[in-house]
Amino acid sequence: MKIGIPETGQKRVVVVGGGFGGLVLVNKLRKSGYQVVLIDKNNYHQFQPLFYQVATAGLEPSSIVYPLRKMFQRNKDVFIRVTEVTAVHPAENRISTPLGDLRYDYLVLATGVDTNYFGNAQLAANVIPMKSVSEALYLRNILFADFESAVTAEGNEQQRLLDIVVVGGGPTGVEVAGALAEMRKHVLPKDYPEIDSSQIDIHLIQGANRLLDGMTEKASAAALHFLQELGVQVRLGTFVKDFDGQTLTMSDGSQLTAKKVIWAAGISGQLMHGIPAEAYGPGKRLKVNRFNQLEGFENIYAIGDSALLVDDAFPKGHPQVAQVAMQMGANLAENLQRALGQLAPKPFNYKDLGSMATIGRNRAVVDLPFWKFNGVFAWYTWLLVHLLQLIGFKNKLFVFFNWVWSYLTYDQSLRLVIKPRKAGALHTSFQN
Amino acid sequence: MKIGIPETGQKRVVVVGGGFGGLVLVNKLRKSGYQVVLIDKNNYHQFQPLFYQVATAGLEPSSIVYPLRKMFQRNKDVFIRVTEVTAVHPAENRISTPLGDLRYDYLVLATGVDTNYFGNAQLAANVIPMKSVSEALYLRNILFADFESAVTAEGNEQQRLLDIVVVGGGPTGVEVAGALAEMRKHVLPKDYPEIDSSQIDIHLIQGANRLLDGMTEKASAAALHFLQELGVQVRLGTFVKDFDGQTLTMSDGSQLTAKKVIWAAGISGQLMHGIPAEAYGPGKRLKVNRFNQLEGFENIYAIGDSALLVDDAFPKGHPQVAQVAMQMGANLAENLQRALGQLAPKPFNYKDLGSMATIGRNRAVVDLPFWKFNGVFAWYTWLLVHLLQLIGFKNKLFVFFNWVWSYLTYDQSLRLVIKPRKAGALHTSFQN
Repeated sequence: MKIGIPETGQKRVVVVGGGFGGLVLVNKLRKSGYQVVLIDKNNYHQFQPLFYQVATAGLEPSSIVYPLRKMFQRNKDVFIRVTEVTAVHPAENRISTPLGDLRYDYLVLATGVDTNYFGNAQLAANVIPMKSVSEALYLRNILFADFESAVTAEGNEQQRLLDIVVVGGGPTGVEVAGALAEMRKHVLPKDYPEIDSSQIDIHLIQGANRLLDGMTEKASAAALHFLQELGVQVRLGTFVKDFDGQTLTMSDGSQLTAKKVIWAAGISGQLMHGIPAEAYGPGKRLKVNRFNQLEGFENIYAIGDSALLVDDAFPKGHPQVAQVAMQMGANLAENLQRALGQLAPKPFNYKDLGSMATIGRNRAVVDLPFWKFNGVFAWYTWLLVHLLQLIGFKNKLFVFFNWVWSYLTYDQSLRLVIKPRKAGALHTSFQN
Repeated sequence: MKIGIPETGQKRVVVVGGGFGGLVLVNKLRKSGYQVVLIDKNNYHQFQPLFYQVATAGLEPSSIVYPLRKMFQRNKDVFIRVTEVTAVHPAENRISTPLGDLRYDYLVLATGVDTNYFGNAQLAANVIPMKSVSEALYLRNILFADFESAVTAEGNEQQRLLDIVVVGGGPTGVEVAGALAEMRKHVLPKDYPEIDSSQIDIHLIQGANRLLDGMTEKASAAALHFLQELGVQVRLGTFVKDFDGQTLTMSDGSQLTAKKVIWAAGISGQLMHGIPAEAYGPGKRLKVNRFNQLEGFENIYAIGDSALLVDDAFPKGHPQVAQVAMQMGANLAENLQRALGQLAPKPFNYKDLGSMATIGRNRAVVDLPFWKFNGVFAWYTWLLVHLLQLIGFKNKLFVFFNWVWSYLTYDQSLRLVIKPRKAGALHTSFQN
């Protein structure tokens, strides 16, 4: 096995991860004179803000992901390898992958974060995460398979199949709870007249004392109000301690019977073999300076959710959101280009463009730097901003059509339980 | 567990299978006064003629399948159960399912056919079938995962990862081979500049002495010509005897090294517990009279691919195509309605509206009863006919957009390897 990247005499930048940060970086470097190698375990970029719509049958995965090879089809200096980095050897400027080793001049870790179960293996085994498009699709399959089973189930068993618990009151948790409540109202009574849809309980459990605690208090209050209007049972200041597949145990000792627990409660970086322990900060984030250089290294960088950049404005590190990742990617691209011209690098300065979340139909909360608003206009703003951020004209078009369609018909139509025919074989062929 | 179908005093028709035949039947009976129970193992209807486009990244599964519940949302007399029939008890007019037993007045078996491996377990374990949308999606994943692996593979291993063998020269085999050849020409050189796409061999192996042997000789000759123009290596009069995952063995003793073998070579009915052996004809098809009544039974019917209706025009049974299934479903619906009015049933008379197949871009063959033609106009005819047959305006719209998009850009864009995150769990939850 050869990894097969030619030595061209160009300096080589190896970017690990094709999320928001990695993609902006590669895009800006594609005609820079560097040879760029992009490594991702998937052959596509995922647009995470819309995962919840895949989970609730509003969008197809293909509408919100984009093939990496297609993105860089015309860039002869960009090489893509669908694999994983198993180790970094900083002393030798080299990484290891299952396809072979690769030398780098610059290494950029844009590896993002994964779901954090806080070390609870039982919890990890029983909850449903939503940090990838495959997981979102898996959740959709579970949802509709359970509704099917509920048609012929009775009593407690039926209740168990119908109820949904969402853990985590950040944007993902709020958005998925809102979408599920809309589905309970508009779709399920038509599809399942045999089920009394008012019987379906949707719980949202949030550890902090308010929802969307990265946003303003005004946005938090509006989100809570909107969710309660939609009949979501919100519990604030409550942590989930455990879930054995049957019973959810809360920090206050109370319990809830549940089958489907959607876990949107925590994220964590992942340790990379070869990066010393002292380079990691809280949440396993990689400590970087204002040039995104990894502590202790000259030519290794970290950007995005996995980077911990502390400054006066952000003493606990920058928020783990797409905007920060994209701006870090852009700044690093500029610095790498400046390095080619022997220019000094520019420090990273975050410009907060605002944040937003949508709660069902016609409702959203938006915090812009100089204007906070919510309601219908916020909802249109949310739609527009997300549409524009999607990669690819075709994706924009298809998502737009889907949204208009769902809006007019009150009907997300992708309610299909599509099972892998040879699940075992798939699992063997494509390790995640 | 209760299957939960209310006893309303209406006569009950139980339809097993939501394919073309079953769906037409249920649709025509939905306001007939009968109570109709539709049983399918999936919660959707699949449009099989376009499976090959799902496999070759041209269409999403959701565009060519339609949720059964959505189809009958407004019909209070139609009940849907996503399950399987495990046994028929004709003496008691009763079927068994994992959800419980169900009494019927009329039972219609529209169970279709599955892939036939001619009893060769090794073959069955190693080839890739294409008889469901999940299988088509599985094939797509294999295709693109293999292309990724081929980028860094060498010599014989690379060749093995690139080559594709299609077994079976009916419409499915011809269409998938044509689509793969177009992909080799237009997509792969752009996505994988590191692979010499002329190195990819596409083989089509057909047992009969001509392709599309259900169509005219003219269509067969044109299909062969079109495929050869596209560089597909066609072998006629050759049966595949065995495939061990590495080597394909032909009836003439010749061998071919291969990894991906797409099996479109044979179909077979399936035995149903409780139906006596003498009710089955060749290919495990259910012998029916001209009213689609199962041999030896008054109130059990079979329609579609699983039915064997022999008459002077079709001494070996009617062709196993969508048209026959739909016409049988319509005729049976009419006869069941006539039965309510004590009218005598009408015998089934097949009206052959023609058949067609497409071979890549701008090329198709069409046999209409009074006109046989091929080429570009045939291709447009093929597109139009398939578009009109799709269920649901939204599906029509999305497929149309996808086709126009792919046609203009020479680019099927759904080249995503989306792996189930929890394959094991999925497998356990949803047995196929």
